[in-house]
Amino acid sequence: MMPLSLKQFLQECSARVEATLSGALSQYPAEAQTLLEAMRYSTLNGGKRVRPMLVYATAGALGTPASRCDGAAAAVEAIHAYSLIHDDLPSMDDDDLRRGQPTCHIRFGEANAILAGDALQTLAFELIVNGDLAAETRVAMLSELARAGGAAGMVAGQAIDLASVDRQLDLPSLERMHRLKTGALIRASVRIGALAAGASDAQLEDLSRYADAIGLAFQVQDDILDVVADTETLGKAQGADIALNKPTYVSLLGLEGARRKATELHSAAHAALAHLDERAAPLRDLADYIVHRDH
Amino acid sequence: MMPLSLKQFLQECSARVEATLSGALSQYPAEAQTLLEAMRYSTLNGGKRVRPMLVYATAGALGTPASRCDGAAAAVEAIHAYSLIHDDLPSMDDDDLRRGQPTCHIRFGEANAILAGDALQTLAFELIVNGDLAAETRVAMLSELARAGGAAGMVAGQAIDLASVDRQLDLPSLERMHRLKTGALIRASVRIGALAAGASDAQLEDLSRYADAIGLAFQVQDDILDVVADTETLGKAQGADIALNKPTYVSLLGLEGARRKATELHSAAHAALAHLDERAAPLRDLADYIVHRDH
Repeated sequence: MMPLSLKQFLQECSARVEATLSGALSQYPAEAQTLLEAMRYSTLNGGKRVRPMLVYATAGALGTPASRCDGAAAAVEAIHAYSLIHDDLPSMDDDDLRRGQPTCHIRFGEANAILAGDALQTLAFELIVNGDLAAETRVAMLSELARAGGAAGMVAGQAIDLASVDRQLDLPSLERMHRLKTGALIRASVRIGALAAGASDAQLEDLSRYADAIGLAFQVQDDILDVVADTETLGKAQGADIALNKPTYVSLLGLEGARRKATELHSAAHAALAHLDERAAPLRDLADYIVHRDH
Repeated sequence: MMPLSLKQFLQECSARVEATLSGALSQYPAEAQTLLEAMRYSTLNGGKRVRPMLVYATAGALGTPASRCDGAAAAVEAIHAYSLIHDDLPSMDDDDLRRGQPTCHIRFGEANAILAGDALQTLAFELIVNGDLAAETRVAMLSELARAGGAAGMVAGQAIDLASVDRQLDLPSLERMHRLKTGALIRASVRIGALAAGASDAQLEDLSRYADAIGLAFQVQDDILDVVADTETLGKAQGADIALNKPTYVSLLGLEGARRKATELHSAAHAALAHLDERAAPLRDLADYIVHRDH
């Protein structure tokens, strides 16, 4: 279902991210061995690398080569990886499996998992700080990353998500939770790619609208797949969110309503890219893939 | 025992840090209310503020006003606060009390405590990123903070510390663990203060030696007090580390050996400040206080 060109682009991005993360992790002192193993386990694991791909694809859409984005792309992946480790912990979502493998705390114990997440957050900032872009560019990227990652973004979203178990969120609250929990980092990935390319304010604004649309579309499609896909395709138990009594787009809008919503967001994503030429193909392909994927 | 001038200086620093942190926390969206409460609880709590004080005192020793350091000083305190929250968790040191108050996870639950720590780390970077110093200065400070905070510093130290329970560390390993776990952030605090003042490389080197000496002295004195002070003075159970069967300076060197070690480090700290004038008085007073304190 994924077009070959997008698949190849994702593979190129993945290879760059793995190389950058692997290089960065190999520079740490070897004495805290289990910590480093846990960090490697949770980052060099064949993840989908959607967020780093957004950094590369956005910079590329504005004519900037991938080599200018390696640190930033690895940084958003490090933030994503840290958030998954912590979200999987027993006191949070209590997940034993992630992509069919034992989660970090199952494999390395809870203490090492917490510390690995902590150190991956630090690594994310380090990857941008110690890059070779102009200091002003690095500071602008770090500001995006910090806003997206903390109590104004991803962490707030996770806190609201945890508090929403067994509660009825209405649609605006659900949307707000997702914009914080997953949307903020997707937006930051796109904006960081744009910053690497020296984007204008107007371009930044267009691209932010694109990011917001695909971020939400991704979540809506996730909720749809949680209901319609089988466990094997999905790699997690089907209906897991509904079993937890968490509000979803499907529970609030019904399956057809959720599908309409995904289609609207898909159109909004394309509209936001109207001013960009064919170099934005990976961004357009990704928008298509997000709402058409089956896992 | 603390000289009045140092006490007043610490109070001024504390007031500045509380104001900066309180202002920063009030800018977050109010919807993740428990998360923000947990963050406030763990930062606006009358802590000793030794690390921010080191930022201010070092900058001041080089003639730079406190107003240039507020973001950076609050940043190192935010890192410290996050590390305490996570270290206290059940899977780590499993502490119920901190400064005589319930620890963050006892008060707000484990999930919120993990998230509050995560968001405080992000806040630390944000506080420097969004400051008004030159971009190059901010990047240099952020580099120090990232190196000290992650898998090359504090987090590695905590991982090694956890792995050392019930194991016999020798003296070099114990020292290395402390240099990572607490020393790295103390060193970063001093160096960040020096960066705010535009210190020369030679000054940075001297001040780093000062920081390493007081960081270790602080730990040696802690181990001594863990044995000789009573629970009420200390605010934690006496002999707690020995009960956990953790190696300490006292268990490795004996009480007199540990006291000699503290005295040597005290001399080294003063020697490292030899090139600085009377504006370094708070740094000198702090070195004295660290080895003479009784709690």
